[in-house]
Amino acid sequence: MTLIRPENPQQARLVRLLRDDGPRSRVELGDILGLSRSTLTTELERLVARGLVETAGLAASRGGRRSSLLRLAGGVRFAGVVIGADRITAAITDGELNVLAETGEPADVRGGPESVIGRAVDLVEKLRAELGIAELTGVGVALPGPVDGDTSIAPAVLPGWQRFPVRDAFATELGCPALVDNDANVLALGEHHAGIGRTFDDFLYLKLGTAIGCGLVLGGTLYRGATSSAGDIAHLPLGEDGPACVCGEVGCLEAYAGDAGLVRAALAAARSGRSPALATRLTAAGTLTVPDVAAAATAGDPAAQALVRDAARRLGQVLVGLISFFNPSIVVIGGAPEGVGHILLSEIRGVVYRRSAPLATGTMPVVLSDLADRAGLVGAARLASEHVFATD
Amino acid sequence: MTLIRPENPQQARLVRLLRDDGPRSRVELGDILGLSRSTLTTELERLVARGLVETAGLAASRGGRRSSLLRLAGGVRFAGVVIGADRITAAITDGELNVLAETGEPADVRGGPESVIGRAVDLVEKLRAELGIAELTGVGVALPGPVDGDTSIAPAVLPGWQRFPVRDAFATELGCPALVDNDANVLALGEHHAGIGRTFDDFLYLKLGTAIGCGLVLGGTLYRGATSSAGDIAHLPLGEDGPACVCGEVGCLEAYAGDAGLVRAALAAARSGRSPALATRLTAAGTLTVPDVAAAATAGDPAAQALVRDAARRLGQVLVGLISFFNPSIVVIGGAPEGVGHILLSEIRGVVYRRSAPLATGTMPVVLSDLADRAGLVGAARLASEHVFATD
Repeated sequence: MTLIRPENPQQARLVRLLRDDGPRSRVELGDILGLSRSTLTTELERLVARGLVETAGLAASRGGRRSSLLRLAGGVRFAGVVIGADRITAAITDGELNVLAETGEPADVRGGPESVIGRAVDLVEKLRAELGIAELTGVGVALPGPVDGDTSIAPAVLPGWQRFPVRDAFATELGCPALVDNDANVLALGEHHAGIGRTFDDFLYLKLGTAIGCGLVLGGTLYRGATSSAGDIAHLPLGEDGPACVCGEVGCLEAYAGDAGLVRAALAAARSGRSPALATRLTAAGTLTVPDVAAAATAGDPAAQALVRDAARRLGQVLVGLISFFNPSIVVIGGAPEGVGHILLSEIRGVVYRRSAPLATGTMPVVLSDLADRAGLVGAARLASEHVFATD
Repeated sequence: MTLIRPENPQQARLVRLLRDDGPRSRVELGDILGLSRSTLTTELERLVARGLVETAGLAASRGGRRSSLLRLAGGVRFAGVVIGADRITAAITDGELNVLAETGEPADVRGGPESVIGRAVDLVEKLRAELGIAELTGVGVALPGPVDGDTSIAPAVLPGWQRFPVRDAFATELGCPALVDNDANVLALGEHHAGIGRTFDDFLYLKLGTAIGCGLVLGGTLYRGATSSAGDIAHLPLGEDGPACVCGEVGCLEAYAGDAGLVRAALAAARSGRSPALATRLTAAGTLTVPDVAAAATAGDPAAQALVRDAARRLGQVLVGLISFFNPSIVVIGGAPEGVGHILLSEIRGVVYRRSAPLATGTMPVVLSDLADRAGLVGAARLASEHVFATD
């Protein structure tokens, strides 16, 4: 594979700026980065010669001669892969991380890494063929569990993923640099690139769903912690007792507010007669899902609404501590079940604003992500670009 | 006042290295900072001419001509002031932040900023006269409450401190640059400079005592959060009910594990007859203090030991969340009552290791600070030096 990476820190700053801000004139690039005219000319020539940057027409006139715009070259193409608990999605982006094509299919992560990675690679290869791309610049992969550098450190519920060399597998199969990280971190990167997190340097991303997790952006970059496990809040104990969790403990946040916890509480509400709406759905389908709970709540079923509010209150309790401790500029919540985001949000806000330190929350917004699936795909491409567009 | 600060980033890196590592030869300075011989010579000459750096004899021979050592000049003198709930301490340090002299006296912070700052200034002036120092390079001040940049944003329990311009007051009175921060942040800086935190880039400092707080060092620098309130964990709610807190809420961490909470629980134990040792002390003195609880626990009184363990368990519960979220390299605990540090520590460790994510805590030490009062004084001097030894 051909590795096209910047040769020095100036080139790295140039390509990152073009990635984040789009096409720019020479004058703008020089001004923003504080580079001298001669350095700028030299480094841009090198980047053009190496196929990373290209010209893109003329800039709007600022008086005098119109200068030409520069942008990341058409040969720069990233792949983003999101491996969820029961679905794989993949996308290919340009250098600015705009999604050019995306696809996805159901897949059970418990099938093990060889099978799941093989199918993810097939999805990327299919997109690559459709778009007629000869070579990928890099691939980023989000995994539904803890990741330590090159390998997946899976929780006990994911047999076979424990210390599997996921990064090597993707790099070898796709013939380009590969990066892996856990899904909460990747989603936070996506929010930082393309969502409301774009305008904040310090924010907390809370991911709901099968697994609950946090991504922390600090000073504009992802904070991973001493052993890459920052944000692993799924198994925080909320008390001495509580529902059983997949991890073997009881009373974990995820056991209350994760998808499985919500479904268990919904089954209880259906069987006890507290929720006629859920009981009807249970009788019809033989089981209940999170979308069932969301649909019943949206349709006005008080018991289903109470389930959502209860999960939100547990999330709020944990957020109060994290916000006091970390004092973010904003909290972004992703993965809320379709239709009940506003119920979740109002309950979470209630708990947070009632009990957080006023200095930390006085002006701090708590919002729902509006990127949906795109956050993960863009974040995965961004993960790859962070590596490729660096010199170390 | 004469401001002696570095003129450019190279000079700033040189003086910070000499502050943190002590005297160094030219060769070592060039190697460590990656500076060319000519840049190094130019910048060191400027620093010597401006009175920030001086020569300090010859380095040990490395073969060939012995090179001369350089160190921060004798004219570089910082003051550190720690304003506690009931005591002011002050110190003067050299450029490497070694304490040259220190002093302290009882003072009730509720006396208000004018009176307390006046007495703190007097303490510093006394030390300055004793040491024959003409001019201070900078002063750092730790306050027992939240601080936002230049002013003190005090909790309701500190009348008069609300938005008082503490920084300006010290700068004007002492005729040198002044910096202020809350005590937990200053203590964390002290641990980072002179304690076990010296060898860690990401650590969590937990401050016990009248007020409970956290200081976060991230990537070698203090993390203050979006509105300078990162680490304000005192009023985290541990449940829906619990003892009343000074803040007006109930069940705050501080209401359980702060000094006032411990004393309230001790009074209850003495009056109920559960603790004969505390009852005897109460009868003798008419009241109880944290040292009374510590002495009774150290002497083997089971009820007093249980009080300490109960406070520790509450602290541990909060730490579990913070550790999962932040994934620090180490947790340092300061301000533990004399004699009961080991009881506190073993209970906190028990809770943390039992319920934290294994990835975050597998190798993470939880230790007691061994700097005692020095952490605050050195941290305050360090705070001042961070500002003076920078170019922005």
